[in-house]
Amino acid sequence: MLNETHDPKLTSWVPGADRSGGDFPVQNLPFGVFRTRGAYEPWRGGVAIGDMIVDLRAACGLGVFNGLAGQAAEAASASTLNGLMAMGPTAWSALRLALSRTLRTGGTEADSLRSCLVAQESAEHAVPAQIGDYTDFLTSAHHMRNAGKIFQPDAPELPHFKWLPIAYHGRSSSVEVSGANFHRPLGQTRPPGAGQPVFGPSKRLDYEMELGFFVGAGNRRGEPIAIDEAEDHIFGVCLLNDWSARDVQAWESMPLGPFLAKNFMTSVSPWIVTMEALAPYRCALPREASDPPTLAHLQPRDGHVQGGLDIQLEVSLQTLSSGTTEMPLSRSSASHGYWSLAQMLAHHTEGGCNLRPGDLIGTGTQSGPTRGEEGCLLELSWGGREPVRLANGETRTFLEDGDTVIMRGWCERAGHARIGFGECRGTVLGSLARREI
Amino acid sequence: MLNETHDPKLTSWVPGADRSGGDFPVQNLPFGVFRTRGAYEPWRGGVAIGDMIVDLRAACGLGVFNGLAGQAAEAASASTLNGLMAMGPTAWSALRLALSRTLRTGGTEADSLRSCLVAQESAEHAVPAQIGDYTDFLTSAHHMRNAGKIFQPDAPELPHFKWLPIAYHGRSSSVEVSGANFHRPLGQTRPPGAGQPVFGPSKRLDYEMELGFFVGAGNRRGEPIAIDEAEDHIFGVCLLNDWSARDVQAWESMPLGPFLAKNFMTSVSPWIVTMEALAPYRCALPREASDPPTLAHLQPRDGHVQGGLDIQLEVSLQTLSSGTTEMPLSRSSASHGYWSLAQMLAHHTEGGCNLRPGDLIGTGTQSGPTRGEEGCLLELSWGGREPVRLANGETRTFLEDGDTVIMRGWCERAGHARIGFGECRGTVLGSLARREI
Repeated sequence: MLNETHDPKLTSWVPGADRSGGDFPVQNLPFGVFRTRGAYEPWRGGVAIGDMIVDLRAACGLGVFNGLAGQAAEAASASTLNGLMAMGPTAWSALRLALSRTLRTGGTEADSLRSCLVAQESAEHAVPAQIGDYTDFLTSAHHMRNAGKIFQPDAPELPHFKWLPIAYHGRSSSVEVSGANFHRPLGQTRPPGAGQPVFGPSKRLDYEMELGFFVGAGNRRGEPIAIDEAEDHIFGVCLLNDWSARDVQAWESMPLGPFLAKNFMTSVSPWIVTMEALAPYRCALPREASDPPTLAHLQPRDGHVQGGLDIQLEVSLQTLSSGTTEMPLSRSSASHGYWSLAQMLAHHTEGGCNLRPGDLIGTGTQSGPTRGEEGCLLELSWGGREPVRLANGETRTFLEDGDTVIMRGWCERAGHARIGFGECRGTVLGSLARREI
Repeated sequence: MLNETHDPKLTSWVPGADRSGGDFPVQNLPFGVFRTRGAYEPWRGGVAIGDMIVDLRAACGLGVFNGLAGQAAEAASASTLNGLMAMGPTAWSALRLALSRTLRTGGTEADSLRSCLVAQESAEHAVPAQIGDYTDFLTSAHHMRNAGKIFQPDAPELPHFKWLPIAYHGRSSSVEVSGANFHRPLGQTRPPGAGQPVFGPSKRLDYEMELGFFVGAGNRRGEPIAIDEAEDHIFGVCLLNDWSARDVQAWESMPLGPFLAKNFMTSVSPWIVTMEALAPYRCALPREASDPPTLAHLQPRDGHVQGGLDIQLEVSLQTLSSGTTEMPLSRSSASHGYWSLAQMLAHHTEGGCNLRPGDLIGTGTQSGPTRGEEGCLLELSWGGREPVRLANGETRTFLEDGDTVIMRGWCERAGHARIGFGECRGTVLGSLARREI
């Protein structure tokens, strides 16, 4: 539902907010948790606008927001956004409206809020919620088909992919915010043709370009969330990199799924773009998503006319040789996803599983239908058989030490503002020191 | 390492502690979180002894314990045991020794502690820790072989089972303490021979008889815990029922493992028996666990002479017809497990994954080598093909509405006290109301 906060004609008095191609115009207003870099001060909630962050804790101290918006800002002043997430969409919307009316050009209370701005370049971020559980889905039919063909060229498609959104539980302890780096994981793998496995650094380290979304109000165990109510339980969307050790994954995953292959690190972008901010960029799910017809328990009343999200996604790489130059690896759109966020969330609870505010849910790798739209190196290099040529002449099959993966996302549509997600970045460090082996 | 707390000659002045066959003699001293049933009072840590619970919060109020034991008791007075768990084995051991010296016959400070006892029958329990992440392993070769043959009679054994402890991430939000019940989950399944799936109540609902263990001090991301240090990071062991919807599992699990099949509910017993209490009941791992030889990163210096745990496990059933009579279903021992708890924990961290105090790790179904030792109905009824006859003449292939599953565990060995785990109990309620389908 569009409202005055989406008006593309709105501008803002905050530096950088009206810059063409910027991620954070007044129509966006994403939430995160921040503090001044290196300072001994509390983590607290903030909202990105232009080059700045609205410090919600400071704003509460000055009494800038009233009523439900004020309560929401108070909840968002904590060191995590769980309290805000638990409040539900009416509160989120009230705070968004109050922020918009203050931050827009000529806005009310602008003078008070001006003193609550912190420069983004002086801030550092934390994971924006205490994540009780992290779940990751597999919802791109293109990723599913590519990965299937790479591992087993003659295998049929997964028979259940078009009937339910496939998912597994991930590791919440190792979810980190953009900028955190990690050592190449050690692990057990079985080299091709070898009689027995070996233990050592992963040789097939990969990223996965995903969206993540945070659960708003949760549900009680045993009380599923119906498909038509599901979206009200989604606070917003971030970028997510599901780093993966493919050789570990291939050896360990039967029959219980990936474990060490993915639990050494998962990165999220610091900013969560709310579902309300994403309203102008909704789209239909892909045509194939209604063939076969979705079973009733996952079929919304409106047939998911606007189930999809047209979010542009881009991955680029910096290597030790390239320095700060970002070399594009691939580009796609979340609109190719087979299952909607609402379907994922409703499915998650249909057996009685309880979600809690701040739970993180990944969409799985967002690969598109054509070459160049693959969301991971496994697909881009076709299982390591076709090295990817980078802009500086280097090649990659999988990630090398020192590589930095940068994901970006944004929405643009005629007649609407462009809004962005910022970036989700992480660097592969050398492998963990081998202990006495 | 045995010490004075394990002395089988010790008796206690607490009612019920010296009862033959009881679970909670003074040699046990397991930790849990409790409050008076239905009372408006805080959850806090307690220790089971005989028919009573030592209220550690009350004991701290009276200053019963000093030094490190006092600090540990203080940490254990909170509403979860995470703080105690984070302190590590020296602190756990100090508190155990202080408790033992007070609770034994003729103990010091007995008069003070007498006023801190609460009757177990008047108490209710909470999950003893805030569980950041829950992981479940598959470490019984017998369960692995049985399940494999049931699903695919001609399939070979899993090639990696003997090289690494297989595991997946579970759902921490739906871990509940013994006594919590649940509705039969709805889910998508594909009936045999059907062209398309259906949505409805699971028809193949099962339990899994497991041990769980709680992580003590954790590790930082990127800093694995070496195999020889792993046991110092284990606080203690409980009983765990990994309720499973087999028909949902069969349809959803490829390629990412079980999801809705297991996330509707997991039950744990209220009492955590510490690793120190379990010291007299250690045993070698099974012979087959050294063939093939374990790779160095999972091989302890002592070759795991005492890697195993000889914990007797028993499952029984109450049905709507049987009333409170408990009908035995199966009995086995955790000593049949292929991988040790230390191997599971070290493996979990080898790629850099961080564990946090209070994380819960399940061992997987503890099936033994012979008929009658199977740890779940899937195996006992051989995939539903051979109904299990109960003592009252009823039969079961899978669980029916109203069935109550009761798990018990205990250790006994010549020359040592018998210690027990109490029980882990849960009842299957009718399926969730079908929403508009």
